[in-house]
This record gives sequence, structure tokens and C-alpha cells, in this order.
Amino acid sequence: MDVLDRVAVLRAAGRDVVSLCAGEPSGGAPTLVSEAASRIHASGRALTYTSALGIHELRAEVTAHYGRWYGIDVDPARVAITTGSSGGFVLAFLAAFEAGDRVALARPGYPAYRNILTSLGCQVVDIDCGPDTRYQPTPQLLDAAQAQGALAGLIVASPANPTGTMVDRAELSALTGWCAANGVRLVSDEIYHGVTYPEPGADDPRGVCAWETDDSSVVVSSFSKYWGMTGWRLGWLLLPEDLARPVDALAGNVALCPPAPAQYAAVSAFAEESYRECDEAVEEFARTRKLLLDNAARLGWGASAPPDGAFYYWADLGPRLERWGSSAAYARALLEEVGVAITPGGDFDDRAGGRSVRLSFAAGSTAVGEAIERIEAFNAR
Amino acid sequence: MDVLDRVAVLRAAGRDVVSLCAGEPSGGAPTLVSEAASRIHASGRALTYTSALGIHELRAEVTAHYGRWYGIDVDPARVAITTGSSGGFVLAFLAAFEAGDRVALARPGYPAYRNILTSLGCQVVDIDCGPDTRYQPTPQLLDAAQAQGALAGLIVASPANPTGTMVDRAELSALTGWCAANGVRLVSDEIYHGVTYPEPGADDPRGVCAWETDDSSVVVSSFSKYWGMTGWRLGWLLLPEDLARPVDALAGNVALCPPAPAQYAAVSAFAEESYRECDEAVEEFARTRKLLLDNAARLGWGASAPPDGAFYYWADLGPRLERWGSSAAYARALLEEVGVAITPGGDFDDRAGGRSVRLSFAAGSTAVGEAIERIEAFNAR
Repeated sequence: MDVLDRVAVLRAAGRDVVSLCAGEPSGGAPTLVSEAASRIHASGRALTYTSALGIHELRAEVTAHYGRWYGIDVDPARVAITTGSSGGFVLAFLAAFEAGDRVALARPGYPAYRNILTSLGCQVVDIDCGPDTRYQPTPQLLDAAQAQGALAGLIVASPANPTGTMVDRAELSALTGWCAANGVRLVSDEIYHGVTYPEPGADDPRGVCAWETDDSSVVVSSFSKYWGMTGWRLGWLLLPEDLARPVDALAGNVALCPPAPAQYAAVSAFAEESYRECDEAVEEFARTRKLLLDNAARLGWGASAPPDGAFYYWADLGPRLERWGSSAAYARALLEEVGVAITPGGDFDDRAGGRSVRLSFAAGSTAVGEAIERIEAFNAR
Repeated sequence: MDVLDRVAVLRAAGRDVVSLCAGEPSGGAPTLVSEAASRIHASGRALTYTSALGIHELRAEVTAHYGRWYGIDVDPARVAITTGSSGGFVLAFLAAFEAGDRVALARPGYPAYRNILTSLGCQVVDIDCGPDTRYQPTPQLLDAAQAQGALAGLIVASPANPTGTMVDRAELSALTGWCAANGVRLVSDEIYHGVTYPEPGADDPRGVCAWETDDSSVVVSSFSKYWGMTGWRLGWLLLPEDLARPVDALAGNVALCPPAPAQYAAVSAFAEESYRECDEAVEEFARTRKLLLDNAARLGWGASAPPDGAFYYWADLGPRLERWGSSAAYARALLEEVGVAITPGGDFDDRAGGRSVRLSFAAGSTAVGEAIERIEAFNAR
């Protein structure tokens, strides 16, 4: 946030800044969704409360989406439309965990998991994950955490923020199996599914859904990333049978309902034409990712793991740390001296994040190409 | 909710049901707001995340609104746009209270207060309020509650749900004064402000804002009721100085931001034409309220307090209880036999709600007139 504020100040002063901080696509919603929203509002119809878990039509479309991408049957009664994945996490954590519960998550990881859990009185158990496990937890790492005290929950994100790494089918099965064997509730963050870079002919090109192996997990998803609808605040949960009623009751109290206009419009997100449009946006992310990975050596940084999905590149600063001491100091100097904004790692990892940075390539190949030039020049100073 | 489900079933079977359950206006958003939303979506612009506390333009309009209605200056930095008042309550309670804190609220009252507080681990302290205090807490009642254990918070709703009663300037001052003297945080629910039925020439026709006497309280408001935008999920908080930063940080984690399209469109809610349109809707509520109060004796119920605002009429069932035993049984029979849906009081009062019902007159004078006929006939059976 400090970086974003500084970007705004520099730009207001006329500086040409390349910002690679934003965790969101800039292309916007599929055309059919925007058009549907425009029509809904033009009709002047009253947009009143919907059911707490969302309109039936949209829940049915989400169900069809799971058939399409994963080949699984999902009962619409177990789909909860939520106010973004943020609203979904709050509901899932309230329903699944009690104050005092120990909930494990990978470090580095998305800071809101930790912050929401902490604000609800849960105890966060950090699983330190490095490039050796591609920043993902493993049963061995979980055994070690469990040995310190029983876990109630595990959050897995695939693709993950800030690393973009994914767990494959075998790895996810190992995690769901470990959770089942240990009575631990898995919350599977799948919000970046579809924003993925599979090899041609890969088995699971969109990502593996936790429900393909175990429907006692909570799946969290969103219209924000693949569909480019961040500001609309719309997402969904797949709910284990025992949490469907508690989440319904909680949602009625905590949120009343997800935004109604977005719900009606989002039905069009599942049209053929919308999938095609979103896939084209992912192809541009893929070109940008390739440009970045092909030129990674020019950044002069250290260890990383190539992102399997999302639009993040997380790296140790390696040799750059000698001069700058911390990723925060490096990022600050990079911004001030050559006008490139990246995110220092401290927000994602409160232990070792001072060594790492996150570069978001959501801004596209022109911005990333320019940034690589500038970073190379900066490092050579 | 059971009642609403049953209404749907009866209507699907072709029954003509008059539903007086909904806590929302049916007229929809002001025309300028719908038109703005339609234009925003038609432009196809990407609707990305906004600042966690909302766009500056809308926060500035909210500030101007407080000048217009209450004659007070509010710093836009202390306005937080929220995802409906529901999102505002979650943020306010998380920021203001700790798990275990004792928080007082009137019984009968809006059930979500209790349910959100309980889910966050707070202890709800019920202040039983009857028609003698027009269902509002008083310093005397609070002294009694405080004597049982120190309170951390008090929630006051004016107009209140389910009763529609309001606290006047002197009563609200007495409550803010009591809170200040006792170190208790006041959360003032003002979401029904403007949906009010003042006598001609009344001093505070829109309601009294807690900040007129004390800006250490949290004010909760919404675009849902006066502006008729329930499904849009947009509201706001006025934040005491010490809570502005904590709420900003919490909002970024718990919600990311309020719905962006609704924010851009809602700027038009504060245009002259929008106020005029909303005031016309309130005039129709006023006509319906008059019809109801003029014919209240025909309902055959017991004690009530005339609603000062909102669109609710809360009454003891009086003589009807002898035959039916509970408001739930009465409401069920009324729905099945003559097709009138009202809300039994149990959700609003877990102690004595079995004696009372809530009738919402948001549906307008035709529906209410028809319902009165049917209820009178039903009682005479």
C-alpha cells in the first residue's frame, strides 16, 4: 500500500512509472457480462435482496462450470455465491473454525488469510515453504506442524499468491488425504483457476479442484481473476454437506446477500463467448510470463519457482541483497530511481519476506518488457 | 424465512398472497443512479478494486449529505464506504470490540446484530424494552445492565427494526452522554434515516445523527432504505478518529473494497433529482402508514407504539393470543387461511417475541388496505 501511494504521488508529479504491483487483470469483465449489467440497470428494475446464498440461476451455472472444467457433479444447493472471495473466506472461516483453533497456511502466502483468521481469534500456524516444495505445503511439513499441537484447518492456494505455484493432482490428493486422516478441514483457494500455463496436452489445464478428491473441503473461487471482475465483488464457495446450512444462516446475518446486479450479470460469464474472451486474456498473460521467464536472468535476482498460474513472479533478491540489505529498500530505490514499482515481500512473509519481492505481470508484456530494461539498467548502476 | 418460503410455495400454487414481510422498498434506485450504472457498464471500462474505504468522490458526497441533512461537517477521511450496512457492522464490531466484550442492545431488535456479535465471540446483553420507552433503551435501563458487568458497547437503532420507533435529540444525547460517562462505545444504526414521518415543522425531520452530539460513536448508514438500493449492497460508516485506521486495515483484508460499480453509480444518489424521487417514495410510505394507523383497531391486536420511521408496525397480539397461543401459530394460520404474510416476533425477541408480530408496510397502501380487510375477516371467524 505504501508503494501504491508513492506510485500515485510520482505519477501525479509527471513521472513515467511502470507499476507491477497490482494483483488484478486490467481488461475488465467479459463483454456479455458488461452488456447484461448495462441492460439490467437500464431497465430500471428494483434490485432487491436475493437469497443469502445467491440466485438459483447463477448457482446452477456454477454447477455447470464444474462439469465443464473438472468433469464433476456439484449440487447447486452446495454452491454459495459470495461477496468476492473475501466474503467467502469470512463465511468459511466463521463456519469452519472456532476462536483458538490452529489453522495452518503456507508462508509466503496471501496476507488476508492470516489477518482475517487473527481477527476472528484463530491461531495462525505458519508452514515455511521454499522453492524446494515450490512454496507449497506437504504432508511432511504438516506432520511437523501437527506435532506442535492439533490443527483444525489448512488453507491451500493453487495457484498461490505471491508465488503462482500450483499443486498437481497427486500433491493435492496427498494433502486432502492428510487432512482426512487427521480431522483437519481443508480450505482450498482456487480463485486463480483458469489463469494457468499448462504444457500442451496437460491433464489438468485449469487446475485441480479439491472436490475431485474430497468434498469435505471448502472450495473458494471468484469471478475476479479469470473473468477479470475484481471490483464487482463476486465469488463463490463449494460447501461440504455439514457447512451448507451454517453458512446459509451466517451469510444472511453477515452479508444479507451478494451484490444483486453483479449476480444477474454474472450468469453471462458462463457463455461460450465469455470463456473465449477470458481465454484470450490468459493467452496474453502467458506471452508476458514467457517474456519474463526468458529474461529472468537479466533481473539479477536469486532463486524462484516458475509460476504455474496467476500472474505473479516471486523471487529471492539473491545478489541484490548485499547492496540493499532488504527487499523494501531495493523496491524503494527501484521505484525512485528508475520508476519501476514491485512489491517487497514483507507482507507475504513476515519472517523472510525481507529477502524477496513479488512482480505482478498482469500489466502485460509491454509494461514487463520495459520494466526488465529498467531493472537491468538499475542493477548495473 | 420459513414464512417467505411458504409464501413462495402458495404463490406457485396460484394463491393470491399479500406479503407484508419484506424489509425493503420495492421502488428501486433513483433514476439517475440506475442510468449512471447502465452507462458505466455500457462503456465496458474495467471495474477494478477501489480503495478499501471507497472512492474519494463518493466519500465526499457523503460528507456533503451530512451538511445537507444535519448541518454538520464530516471529514471525508472519516467516511468509510462499506458493502451494505452488513459489511459496516462487521467492520465496526471487529474494530470496536474484543471477543468476550459485553455489548448491549434493545430487545426486540434486528437479529443480525446479535448474530454477528455472537459469531465474533462477543456477549450480547439484552435490554428489554417495551412500549413504555417506545422500545428504546434509556440511561436507567443501561445502568441496570452495567450493574451486572461492565459494558463495552451499546447499539442503538433509530428508526429501529422491528418497531420503527426513534430516539429524539434529547433521548439520543442522554444515551451518548451515558456512553461517554461509562466508557462505552456507541454504535448508532441510522440506516432508516430519511424514511421518517415527522410532524410538519419538526426540528429533526430526517432523524438525529449521533455525531451531532458525539463523534466518538460509530454511525452506520446505507443506500438500501431511503435510496431503495437494497440489493446493491452499499452503505457507509462514520468512524471515530481512533477507529479510522483500524477499519481501513480490516476492510482491506475482510472485503478488499465495496462493490465498485455501485460506488460509481451512487455518486448520483446525492443529486437534487434523486433526493426528490426518494422523498416521493417516503410520501407513499407515509400514506400507507396513515392508512394502517387509522385502521389499527380493525387488526384486533394489542399494544404497539406508532412507528416514527422505517416501514414497520410491531404489535403485541393481545386478545388474539388467547386463541392462537403464539404469534407463530397466528401468523401461520393467517397465511394459510386468508393469504396474508406477516413476520412472527420470535426472530426479533427470543424472550417475548412469541406474543408479537411485525407488519411491514413497505409494500404500499393497496397491499396494506387489502391485508387489513383480510385480517379483520380472519379474526372474525
